Amino acid sequence: MSEPEIKPRDNLQDHLREVQELLHRHKLVETLVHRQDMPRHDLVEGLVHKQHIQELTTRLDEMHAADIAFILESLPIEERTFVWDLVKAERDGEILLEVSDAVRETLLETMDRDELKAAAGTLDADELADLAPDLPDEVMEDVYQALDLEERAQLRAAMSYDEDAVGALMDFDMVTIRPDIRLEVVLRYLRRFAELPDHTDQLFVANRDEALVGVLPLGKMLVSDPERLVSEIMLTDPVTLRPDDKAEDAANAFERYDLVSAPVVTANNQLMGRVTVDTVVDFIREESEAELLNQAGLREEEDIFAPVLDSVRNRWTWLAINLVTAFVASRVIGLFEGSIEKLVALAALMPIVAGIGGNSGNQTITMIVRAMAMGQVDSNSGKRLLKKEVGVALINGLVWGGLLGVLAWWLYGNAQLGAVMTAATTLNLLLASSMGVVIPMAMQRFGRDPALGSSVMITACTDSGGFFIFLGLATLFLM
Amino acid sequence: MSEPEIKPRDNLQDHLREVQELLHRHKLVETLVHRQDMPRHDLVEGLVHKQHIQELTTRLDEMHAADIAFILESLPIEERTFVWDLVKAERDGEILLEVSDAVRETLLETMDRDELKAAAGTLDADELADLAPDLPDEVMEDVYQALDLEERAQLRAAMSYDEDAVGALMDFDMVTIRPDIRLEVVLRYLRRFAELPDHTDQLFVANRDEALVGVLPLGKMLVSDPERLVSEIMLTDPVTLRPDDKAEDAANAFERYDLVSAPVVTANNQLMGRVTVDTVVDFIREESEAELLNQAGLREEEDIFAPVLDSVRNRWTWLAINLVTAFVASRVIGLFEGSIEKLVALAALMPIVAGIGGNSGNQTITMIVRAMAMGQVDSNSGKRLLKKEVGVALINGLVWGGLLGVLAWWLYGNAQLGAVMTAATTLNLLLASSMGVVIPMAMQRFGRDPALGSSVMITACTDSGGFFIFLGLATLFLM
Repeated sequence: MSEPEIKPRDNLQDHLREVQELLHRHKLVETLVHRQDMPRHDLVEGLVHKQHIQELTTRLDEMHAADIAFILESLPIEERTFVWDLVKAERDGEILLEVSDAVRETLLETMDRDELKAAAGTLDADELADLAPDLPDEVMEDVYQALDLEERAQLRAAMSYDEDAVGALMDFDMVTIRPDIRLEVVLRYLRRFAELPDHTDQLFVANRDEALVGVLPLGKMLVSDPERLVSEIMLTDPVTLRPDDKAEDAANAFERYDLVSAPVVTANNQLMGRVTVDTVVDFIREESEAELLNQAGLREEEDIFAPVLDSVRNRWTWLAINLVTAFVASRVIGLFEGSIEKLVALAALMPIVAGIGGNSGNQTITMIVRAMAMGQVDSNSGKRLLKKEVGVALINGLVWGGLLGVLAWWLYGNAQLGAVMTAATTLNLLLASSMGVVIPMAMQRFGRDPALGSSVMITACTDSGGFFIFLGLATLFLM
Repeated sequence: MSEPEIKPRDNLQDHLREVQELLHRHKLVETLVHRQDMPRHDLVEGLVHKQHIQELTTRLDEMHAADIAFILESLPIEERTFVWDLVKAERDGEILLEVSDAVRETLLETMDRDELKAAAGTLDADELADLAPDLPDEVMEDVYQALDLEERAQLRAAMSYDEDAVGALMDFDMVTIRPDIRLEVVLRYLRRFAELPDHTDQLFVANRDEALVGVLPLGKMLVSDPERLVSEIMLTDPVTLRPDDKAEDAANAFERYDLVSAPVVTANNQLMGRVTVDTVVDFIREESEAELLNQAGLREEEDIFAPVLDSVRNRWTWLAINLVTAFVASRVIGLFEGSIEKLVALAALMPIVAGIGGNSGNQTITMIVRAMAMGQVDSNSGKRLLKKEVGVALINGLVWGGLLGVLAWWLYGNAQLGAVMTAATTLNLLLASSMGVVIPMAMQRFGRDPALGSSVMITACTDSGGFFIFLGLATLFLM
């Protein structure tokens, strides 16, 4: 992708506003909707509109693909479709790669088979692999047939990896050189390119069997005497990735070692492709967004202008799970209805015990999950962490629980109720902290992602647990 | 930073395990603790230990600074301090830059003034600016005196910007060339460098007034005829940043335009410095982690081996806020104690209404906050989003609320109670969705970060609101 012609600073919002203005002021959308049954006397108005469409098209042509993607994501579906139709067909492919999954679906729906084929035809094998799951089979079939043998192999390779494996992040735009040539020859070889692939910060050095023997950073080449051999200058032990490595690990390596690109090699050290930092940045963003969305109980990224029913479906799962856990908590309360009838203050106080437990448990589990993701927790440190978290919970429980106990005493003039409140808060915080350590460690042991649903599970424990502890203690000591 | 000598794949965990083994098996820590009062007959054992210390030191010397940082973060404080003492003094600076803030504090505490000065002395001005807030004033004073005039100006510049401004991400390692020279001259000029600065993917082209007139990507230079002039090849309208731009916007630009570096210029287009993608990746990671931590009610990143009291302090704020909102909700219930006394089923059912409202509200607010962060929401789309969210809430409310109503009817044999349950659930979901849109939009209007505390606020609304709606309806229709 070439450098954008337009400075991004401030301009992105301006772009959006400009497009919206062109769309709204001249009622382009209405024109579009009514064009087919337009009466004769509207023809002049139609011509004016045509001029504005032309203006909009020109502006779109000047914009960077990523900026157009942003604008498409920011427009409601009707206007989005209209703008999408004005985009030059040969840019469809790169823009489809930039938009979010949810918006991509809405754009693909408006395209017929030939348009889809044309858009797919402009993409590299690795890009095609990203788009493939969203394309109809017959389109993919045609596109596949149009590829040459090498590209077909690349497409098959790229599609054979898990979404969260390095193979899925890999591209094939590498410049490969031999170790036994002089730098001057490399410089002459490079001049035969029309342009170097994006993010070429190093050349890959392979022997005649296509095995990677080193990398030659451009910076190192440029400061070296052109008479020297590649093999004298190259780094022989670069960071390499395997196609079935976890993408998360590759991202960590990029972050840790400040990489711009890294070669991907097979177990036999055969050079397969490379991963570049722009893909890694996108991956990191998507991961962290998925984590935030999951914590809030959204299954996936949502097009903010998605039809209501699509949104309902996206949020269904977690609401259902939440309903089940809430129902269980409700039945726990049901066990103690007799006690509540006798001392109705229990009903008012019990949500406090549950709530502070949930908050504290979420703090613990977030910290543990995060430390696990960074590989800093093993079974040794597990015990140590448990001890620490229980210590934190004990202090918090005694302090906040004590405060709550005094409040309850003051509100209801019942010292014993205050004591039960303090004890229940402390016990629920102890439960929260130990579950906050145990749940993610158990998830990891069973090979599950410790982050997934951790917040829901801990809250379920602290709700039901909190109600049970508080009402149980109350029944034992106050009835 | 140079390429690491060691491949990162698999090895990081191995490194950690190896260090831990060396530490544990030979009880190095105990040796350290008891060295001062070691009896004579332990001298032989001490010699053996010395040998293992030597082994550990050698291993550490071979490791990449980022890997040592990882190991330090993964070790409990006593062992961490011991390993830190074994690290070569000249590497202290770069490692301090790599570790998390919380761990950095524990490392700095162990260093005396001379060690701190020596460590700071190995850093560039922009790196020093990152470390400065953690260093004692007298150390910074000495370090500042040791800098040359240009470095002092750079340090002052870097420290004058907000943590979340581009100026704080900026470094000064640029290669600048003039527009009116031939590429061949540029190539010869570059050969005089011992090495190019990291992440040099483009040279900055400045005129004699140091105003930026373009950039020359290395890739473009390498494929061009060396006889041509820089001014013929350079890109004249690159993405540029201002030092007081928001770092978040710069990160978005890097992500959107797939940048490796970008020049930072003043309002007069004077070249000040540059931002590189490795800094941006670190920034993105830190931002998304801060967001996750805040959602869980943690004030800041926490050293997992922090002393209990430090952890208590970190979690205090949000627990206190949570306690206040829970107390308010409890008082709302208190208003209806009479009704609960008459119909104790209300106590068991009310947490369900509050809980599902909180879950649904968090879904809405997360989506809106995220769309806002990407600049996709203005006052126009605000109304549209509100309509959509209310629609989603209405469907969810009728479906789930209906289900809950039937359950309540079945459990308590009271059809009217079921109807109240359905109505209250629906109304609380409507409240949740509208507050989920209104709260972040109001925060933004008042210039606040819409993400901060959004989850706590929405949950406070849906808890108190849910209890009030459910118990209020029950009091009106069932009493």
